[in-house]
Amino acid sequence: MDLQPYIRDIPDFPRPGVMFKDITPLLQTPAAFSYVIDQMAAHYKGRAIDGVLAIEARGFLLGAALAYKMEKPLIPLRKRGKLPFHTVSVSYALEYGSDTIEMHQDGLVAGHRVVIVDDVLATGGTMGAACRLVEQSGGKVAGLALLMELAFLNGRQSLAAHDIFALLKY
Amino acid sequence: MDLQPYIRDIPDFPRPGVMFKDITPLLQTPAAFSYVIDQMAAHYKGRAIDGVLAIEARGFLLGAALAYKMEKPLIPLRKRGKLPFHTVSVSYALEYGSDTIEMHQDGLVAGHRVVIVDDVLATGGTMGAACRLVEQSGGKVAGLALLMELAFLNGRQSLAAHDIFALLKY
Repeated sequence: MDLQPYIRDIPDFPRPGVMFKDITPLLQTPAAFSYVIDQMAAHYKGRAIDGVLAIEARGFLLGAALAYKMEKPLIPLRKRGKLPFHTVSVSYALEYGSDTIEMHQDGLVAGHRVVIVDDVLATGGTMGAACRLVEQSGGKVAGLALLMELAFLNGRQSLAAHDIFALLKY
Repeated sequence: MDLQPYIRDIPDFPRPGVMFKDITPLLQTPAAFSYVIDQMAAHYKGRAIDGVLAIEARGFLLGAALAYKMEKPLIPLRKRGKLPFHTVSVSYALEYGSDTIEMHQDGLVAGHRVVIVDDVLATGGTMGAACRLVEQSGGKVAGLALLMELAFLNGRQSLAAHDIFALLKY
């Protein structure tokens, strides 16, 4: 299935000079959304997967449906201060400043192998931080699942140790 | 299935005096998460439903899985400034100040009947705003789906016109 017709280019979002890839047309098309989730699930079928980590906020939309389909624990990774229980956190550099993602301390059991889900792989900053969070918690990254990869931003370079599954490439 | 063992009480979150109901143990238990999504889908089975609106951020986790299961369009309702395309918005009062939720203008087709999904019905402020957003866009609210209802906060009172489906009540 060709998913490109369901991705909308939005110029100058969130700031001037950036061409944003809007996935809402895909979300609003059940055949396309089902295709994405089913392809991701098929990619991991037969592998030892103990959980699905979904990155706030668009990663929640894909990760939740994938965890449901795969019948695996769904673990949210959230921005700082959003998770109510004891958390572990990792900070990472942005173009200007830094950001922090958190996971509940009891989100992962040591040795568990997890898939991390987000909508877009850009520079890989958030995804790299998510990988560190898993590894610091004693878990193993079994794979990174993305709707699309912006290959010209070279996010893959810093994540070369991991299996990266992306349905669309730009 | 008794879901109460999968809801964790967190005292004083997000501020002193509030007892927060943490749904992450439920998300991490595939049998419980599947049960919630399947019960919601069963509730709407046979009814005319044209889409599932998921409220950021925890509503994304439930709404995305429900849209996938029901094979219906998934439409995100987000906080101000997060959606990249043309939006419609509604503001609503909070205890202190106000908040705004937005939906893409092309999220709804006039006349379409939608289910709105969130994790918790508390005072009903956000859910009421979501209903207004749907109606102002020419859509119809076919139902409100929630994991739990905090009945002592009387959110149901202001939403009496709608079919409210909640799996847990406190």
